[in-house]
Amino acid sequence: MNLILLFPSDIVPETSRAVLTGRRQAHVFEVHRAAVGDVLIVGMENGRVGEGRITRLTAAELEMDVKFLSDPPPKIPVVLCVALMRPPVFKRVLQTAATMGVESIHVFHSRRVEKSFWQSAATKEVSIREQLVLGLEQARDTVLPPVFLHPRFKPFAETVLPVLLKGRQGIAADPSGRAVQFSTPIPKVLVIGPEGGFISHEIDRFRAAGCAVVGLGQRILRVETAVTSFLARLT
Amino acid sequence: MNLILLFPSDIVPETSRAVLTGRRQAHVFEVHRAAVGDVLIVGMENGRVGEGRITRLTAAELEMDVKFLSDPPPKIPVVLCVALMRPPVFKRVLQTAATMGVESIHVFHSRRVEKSFWQSAATKEVSIREQLVLGLEQARDTVLPPVFLHPRFKPFAETVLPVLLKGRQGIAADPSGRAVQFSTPIPKVLVIGPEGGFISHEIDRFRAAGCAVVGLGQRILRVETAVTSFLARLT
Repeated sequence: MNLILLFPSDIVPETSRAVLTGRRQAHVFEVHRAAVGDVLIVGMENGRVGEGRITRLTAAELEMDVKFLSDPPPKIPVVLCVALMRPPVFKRVLQTAATMGVESIHVFHSRRVEKSFWQSAATKEVSIREQLVLGLEQARDTVLPPVFLHPRFKPFAETVLPVLLKGRQGIAADPSGRAVQFSTPIPKVLVIGPEGGFISHEIDRFRAAGCAVVGLGQRILRVETAVTSFLARLT
Repeated sequence: MNLILLFPSDIVPETSRAVLTGRRQAHVFEVHRAAVGDVLIVGMENGRVGEGRITRLTAAELEMDVKFLSDPPPKIPVVLCVALMRPPVFKRVLQTAATMGVESIHVFHSRRVEKSFWQSAATKEVSIREQLVLGLEQARDTVLPPVFLHPRFKPFAETVLPVLLKGRQGIAADPSGRAVQFSTPIPKVLVIGPEGGFISHEIDRFRAAGCAVVGLGQRILRVETAVTSFLARLT
């Protein structure tokens, strides 16, 4: 936790005092082993980054005097579209995408996604939010990327994706595609498939929507490695 | 499993028959749901890639007629040096490094590494090998990158690292470093620290050995994300 993300409800009204219990308090108490007077990096949800000076710290509660000083780091100009994954991988990908600073995340169904994944607790709003917060805390960011779920492929590919692509370059990642050098300044939509890849009909839909089909060379990567690799190259 | 990695002991002497039991047989039987006559991609440990035609498949045993046709993909010219991590992260990093094709892996101690990690089962040869095999199978590679463990920082930084750096550009990853564009053709040594980063003395040692200290921008990444990001940019 390189930043403690604060929410409006943490602030005592009309003061600069934040009072925290639960995960964040426990982390400061047990992992940071902080003491009264220590200064921690904090950020307000969707707002600025600053400092919190600890005024009280017990096994149950953390109180800080907070001030907000600077903007969070800018997002990278990438909209990330990923086929839904096994829950543990999905959680890590959400965290990583938030850490790396994508603008928004669209999760879609595709033929090789197991339908049962859509019933998993990892797709519930509270779980998604938890992973995004962990990812933002890692990167010292405060702005939660919006996450959209598209449990049907066709409306995603034919209606949503064309809208996302307005003013952006579309890249559909597939081992069949050529490796290319990216021209970084142009905003992108990055589309990443499931383990096992897209079926050819899906690739055709992405091409029809205006995406280039791009690979990363001979080696086939796991989904989470592909997400990080593409984002690293686009940054 | 995009390739089934075979070992010399799988081959019936003086034949082209491979007989498999255990994890690989179970994967083909239960996940691939293959049948007699199906052709699978195989590779010989540290050797060539080819095909295996299934001649017998039961709940206990898989027999294939194998032939080897082409070389595995070339390695990327990177020696990866990483501080030891929590066991689950260490396992994933070994897998990813094997998938992405690093030449060799050096695992070293550094101040912010918990000493107990060195006692973990994940540092034992059998566990390391297991992760490398999984990583190679993902990438359709056959060549196990050698892994070296350096449980003391000083001999690693002062004796091992200078040897590794002969004829290679050294990059020590640290959030304090500037982001740079990499000139890909030059072989590299990539040094990645623990969660929490290097201490300044360690950074000094890497500089003294000839490494450039390089960051990836404002955002602080988890170790496994940093490993993948740097390797993606160096490729």
